[in-house]
Amino acid sequence: MQNFTYCAPTKVIFGRGVESQIGSTLKDLGASRVLLHYGSGSVKKSGLLDTVITSLTQAGLSYAELGGVAPNPKLSFIQKGIDFCRAEQIDFILAVGGGSVIDSAKAIGVGLATGNDPWQYAATGTHPEANEVFPVGVVLTLAAAGSEMSNSDVITNDLVTPWVKQGITSETVRPLVAFLNPENTYTVSKFQTGCGIVDIMMHTMERYLTGDGECDLTERLAEALLVSVREAGRTAIAHPDDYEARATLMWASSLSHNDLTGCGKQRKFPAHKLEHPISALHDNVAHGAGLSVIFPAWAQYVMQHDLMKFAQLANRVWDCPMNFDHPERTAQAGIETMKRYFAEIGMPTRMSELGITPADYAPIIDLTTKGGKQPVKSYIDLYPDDIRAIYALAE
Amino acid sequence: MQNFTYCAPTKVIFGRGVESQIGSTLKDLGASRVLLHYGSGSVKKSGLLDTVITSLTQAGLSYAELGGVAPNPKLSFIQKGIDFCRAEQIDFILAVGGGSVIDSAKAIGVGLATGNDPWQYAATGTHPEANEVFPVGVVLTLAAAGSEMSNSDVITNDLVTPWVKQGITSETVRPLVAFLNPENTYTVSKFQTGCGIVDIMMHTMERYLTGDGECDLTERLAEALLVSVREAGRTAIAHPDDYEARATLMWASSLSHNDLTGCGKQRKFPAHKLEHPISALHDNVAHGAGLSVIFPAWAQYVMQHDLMKFAQLANRVWDCPMNFDHPERTAQAGIETMKRYFAEIGMPTRMSELGITPADYAPIIDLTTKGGKQPVKSYIDLYPDDIRAIYALAE
Repeated sequence: MQNFTYCAPTKVIFGRGVESQIGSTLKDLGASRVLLHYGSGSVKKSGLLDTVITSLTQAGLSYAELGGVAPNPKLSFIQKGIDFCRAEQIDFILAVGGGSVIDSAKAIGVGLATGNDPWQYAATGTHPEANEVFPVGVVLTLAAAGSEMSNSDVITNDLVTPWVKQGITSETVRPLVAFLNPENTYTVSKFQTGCGIVDIMMHTMERYLTGDGECDLTERLAEALLVSVREAGRTAIAHPDDYEARATLMWASSLSHNDLTGCGKQRKFPAHKLEHPISALHDNVAHGAGLSVIFPAWAQYVMQHDLMKFAQLANRVWDCPMNFDHPERTAQAGIETMKRYFAEIGMPTRMSELGITPADYAPIIDLTTKGGKQPVKSYIDLYPDDIRAIYALAE
Repeated sequence: MQNFTYCAPTKVIFGRGVESQIGSTLKDLGASRVLLHYGSGSVKKSGLLDTVITSLTQAGLSYAELGGVAPNPKLSFIQKGIDFCRAEQIDFILAVGGGSVIDSAKAIGVGLATGNDPWQYAATGTHPEANEVFPVGVVLTLAAAGSEMSNSDVITNDLVTPWVKQGITSETVRPLVAFLNPENTYTVSKFQTGCGIVDIMMHTMERYLTGDGECDLTERLAEALLVSVREAGRTAIAHPDDYEARATLMWASSLSHNDLTGCGKQRKFPAHKLEHPISALHDNVAHGAGLSVIFPAWAQYVMQHDLMKFAQLANRVWDCPMNFDHPERTAQAGIETMKRYFAEIGMPTRMSELGITPADYAPIIDLTTKGGKQPVKSYIDLYPDDIRAIYALAE
């Protein structure tokens, strides 16, 4: 177990009807004028936004609305949001939506707290000072990104060509509070539910497969989460309004990305680093769908460097019998079983299913490796030839 | 899954050598004059206190020492601590020790923050206001009570006859920061290590066996923790200086009592309620040893009311094959296997091993049920006759 620091202070208020606590909770946190930040407007149609507004109003809080966040939230819109919040004298941002809305809210918060363009931090891998915090809360409508409890904020710079997708990692972007009502995810489509399941699993498996050696407790917690998500995922796809299944996915979304499943392990996230350029250059590719294609191929490519850990994962999470004579067969069976599971829940496992052909590879690889100069760190450094080989495994 | 609120904001700094970060971290938290609170003095002998003092001094912090906390921390000593801190103008309490030292520090903090005798809260089941917080930190030397991340504070009123042991449960008593170096537990005796293993398991199993029905993710996380502790416990008893085993126990201690393993379930803790009066009236009984005797007997007594959950625990944690024709046999085998495990790690499983005979039962039962008027809430209400029957199962 490597040394680690763990601090996940987000207050989670979980369950049916928790929206009624929004106003009083935000008031206790010092809010007076709230930005309601959301996406395409489904939260309006569903009535959720009205419920939130009622709770705010009953607590005597005022608000302004800024909807229209797009998937893979864009810097140009975030900059508008910063100006809007200044003009409206907003002192609390409440993201009502999924990962994109939350990440947009976080980035607006970074702009307001620091006075700087948030892209400056994403581009340079730097982060705001510890006291440069703008209060952000979440009403979650999609179990996937885990941004509601995470210190990550992924945004896309649409002001350059080609677009670049980068993350800010900082304790300053953790939401103060998250309201998680599983019922708010009943209407999530099968495809988006599948994307969420993959994203949750990836946040867990990327922390698991790091080559750090022994870390039993963290690994067992990760396996527990993965098995629970595997089964809840099947149920949620078949029965979208199964409360327990939606609750498992929602809570797992938060736990898989608040760092609990990474304590004592290095943070590398190679599959995310391989995927982000894909969805940055192909805006129609959902992050979860991209990961569903890339992760198994990456796993296949690097498996030999951590055979027993891949076998452990295969055995404990994917129920593959351990082959003590040939652990590599168990490891291999784990990857195959995972791919079958992804297909079962309607996720792609091949590049062509993303609409990406070999002719598209070069610019993606170029962006991934900054022109071939910066390999993706994994068990081995992944240079353009390695990445091309990984893509080939996913053809 | 029941509705829940989860917030565990304690910052955990974990691993080898983390003591060097104590001074700067406390300074960042606003400390200037620190109370070093500890127990019998083993932290002096080991050199840990000197290491802590060096770190404080290097950060420019001053300190005063108050050692001498006894196991099951006593109200009379806590009251002295409150006076001492006022006289010394202490603005941060750093507990260097295990659960008793931490709970003493927390109770002193309650006294300082509220101006009231902390017993007033324990006796009445009330708690300080949200803003009545005195900053407390922990340098942990014993993996057991989980008080380093918990909202619990258990103290013993030694100013009344018979003594009464009660808890304060409040977000105001969560430590701000905990420094967890597994090496600081290498010298913990086999017996105290065993008591810690049992205590960690109990904090997890008491949250597991609540009769709340389906709660898959939380239960699987609990099972993961229990299996990891089971194996690490065996290793730590056999090899006291095994870093990974001690690290697993230490991190599990925190996670088992910060409420992670209880999300979506009711908090009842019947075995703790049955044990506290035993160690209150028999000061030589260690809390973990008391639980090791009481919990299996309690489980045996109530098992019939939640058969499938007991079978699930037996199957997934104690490796008992599921008997689909007779789930009660699986559940029963789980309890037997757990008792054998407790014996294997040197823990008692019978009242006589605690030095308690049937002649001692009456006053314990009287204290447990407030003279027979207040049953212990469990699957069924446990009245004096039930408790006597539970004791009989542990004879």
